[in-house]
Amino acid sequence: MPLFNKVAVIGTGLIGGSIALGIKKKKLAREVVGVSRHKKSVFLALKMKVIDQGSVSFKIIKGADLLIIAIPVDAILTLKKRILKYIDKGCIVTDVGSTKEKIVNCLEKTFINYIGSHPLAGLEKRGIVNARPCLFEDSLCILTPTKETSFLALKKMRELWKGLGAKTIILTPKIHDSILSFVSHLPHIIASVLINSIPRDSLRFASGGLKDTTRIAASDALLWRGIFLTNRKNVLKAIESFENNLAKIKSAIKNSNAKALEKILLQSKKIREALE
Amino acid sequence: MPLFNKVAVIGTGLIGGSIALGIKKKKLAREVVGVSRHKKSVFLALKMKVIDQGSVSFKIIKGADLLIIAIPVDAILTLKKRILKYIDKGCIVTDVGSTKEKIVNCLEKTFINYIGSHPLAGLEKRGIVNARPCLFEDSLCILTPTKETSFLALKKMRELWKGLGAKTIILTPKIHDSILSFVSHLPHIIASVLINSIPRDSLRFASGGLKDTTRIAASDALLWRGIFLTNRKNVLKAIESFENNLAKIKSAIKNSNAKALEKILLQSKKIREALE
Repeated sequence: MPLFNKVAVIGTGLIGGSIALGIKKKKLAREVVGVSRHKKSVFLALKMKVIDQGSVSFKIIKGADLLIIAIPVDAILTLKKRILKYIDKGCIVTDVGSTKEKIVNCLEKTFINYIGSHPLAGLEKRGIVNARPCLFEDSLCILTPTKETSFLALKKMRELWKGLGAKTIILTPKIHDSILSFVSHLPHIIASVLINSIPRDSLRFASGGLKDTTRIAASDALLWRGIFLTNRKNVLKAIESFENNLAKIKSAIKNSNAKALEKILLQSKKIREALE
Repeated sequence: MPLFNKVAVIGTGLIGGSIALGIKKKKLAREVVGVSRHKKSVFLALKMKVIDQGSVSFKIIKGADLLIIAIPVDAILTLKKRILKYIDKGCIVTDVGSTKEKIVNCLEKTFINYIGSHPLAGLEKRGIVNARPCLFEDSLCILTPTKETSFLALKKMRELWKGLGAKTIILTPKIHDSILSFVSHLPHIIASVLINSIPRDSLRFASGGLKDTTRIAASDALLWRGIFLTNRKNVLKAIESFENNLAKIKSAIKNSNAKALEKILLQSKKIREALE
């Protein structure tokens, strides 16, 4: 028997589309329906067989026993009431937002069976055309239950993500947001600042190093704006930690302090090499 | 007829080894000899057929009509006199150092037929085991002639790099160092600072974004220490430009200024997307 009867996905982009494709491929639900803002996107999702039925109206989610909200974090906050109308009591609700404290706090007051998810998988490319059923295979998905979360919602969401190939880990929303501000939000800020700091007429000399370092600066601007603003305090702390380390290497270079510079570079080499 | 009779490579690492392999593959010289600090490296270079003859002594470079110095920039400055003894008058000398003003200024006083090269190709992995004859194919190699550079040296080095598959471009050492401080040295500093700023216990949550952004932090620490210290003033200017841009995005986040934040993120997205 599939894990769910009817899964509804709001937002059929890269993440929502990949979840829908994965659910269909692994037969984790009898039916997958999708909602998108634009008719064109619904049409494309149907054509690509990402969903079984689609609509621009939330009506279609009626009767779902799992609702996955896969839209930018700021959009979730404005749409939640319009979604609530069509949700059955027993329906489990999750989102895939990249920040959790604000979202979880808001959504668990709105939906009875809510639990936050954050799959740590993605590409700098967005959109349903890049969606793939295997996007979450061998990835990590953070679940952020609270005291309010029902045991059933937690259990079923662990099974869903496991079914999609992801390993799940449980963190509080607060700890999630603090960790993510460093390992995800800070790199995006740094990549953006770095590419904005290169004189335009020098870009033709860019080699692999600059390209690697700034690849994620090509990510969706509005999505990341929402992430930074819903995790403001943690992001500012992460920037300050970066500033402190930047001041150290700058001072070593300024003072031609070869020893201090070597120590810093050896430390970063060691940490980075251990990463993969 | 090959471009050169006897090519000598000092430093048979990734770059020196790849040049030697490329020269042999494209038959750009009758003979390629190599010098390394360690007997083990010489043995490996011979075994891998990167060079025809090798030694730990500079004596072996005698009679070369092209000498390629492929060792870290600070090592070049200390070894130049020991090399000079074995150089014939007509021998063309080049280096592949990543900074040029200091090196060129020093080497053109030492060698008659000197011209600086900087192939913009490399990997974060070093050593002869990673050397490959095609490393420079479709890459850019900057040549930095000065008023002192002989026409012949410039002409023959253009032909050599072209033979190895690289497009050559001519810049003054001063302009080279200014451009590279932004497109190459700054990204290395930023990658190092970034990985050093992530709390150790959060690294297990690192996804592709952080890994891409910090990949070059795994580069050779001593090599990059030399690069930063021989290009100090330009590197400090590049860091200051970065600091100014970091202050801007930090202020936008601090003040929840969604419009300013969007503008910054859209700008970096546009620049990065145009890069490849």
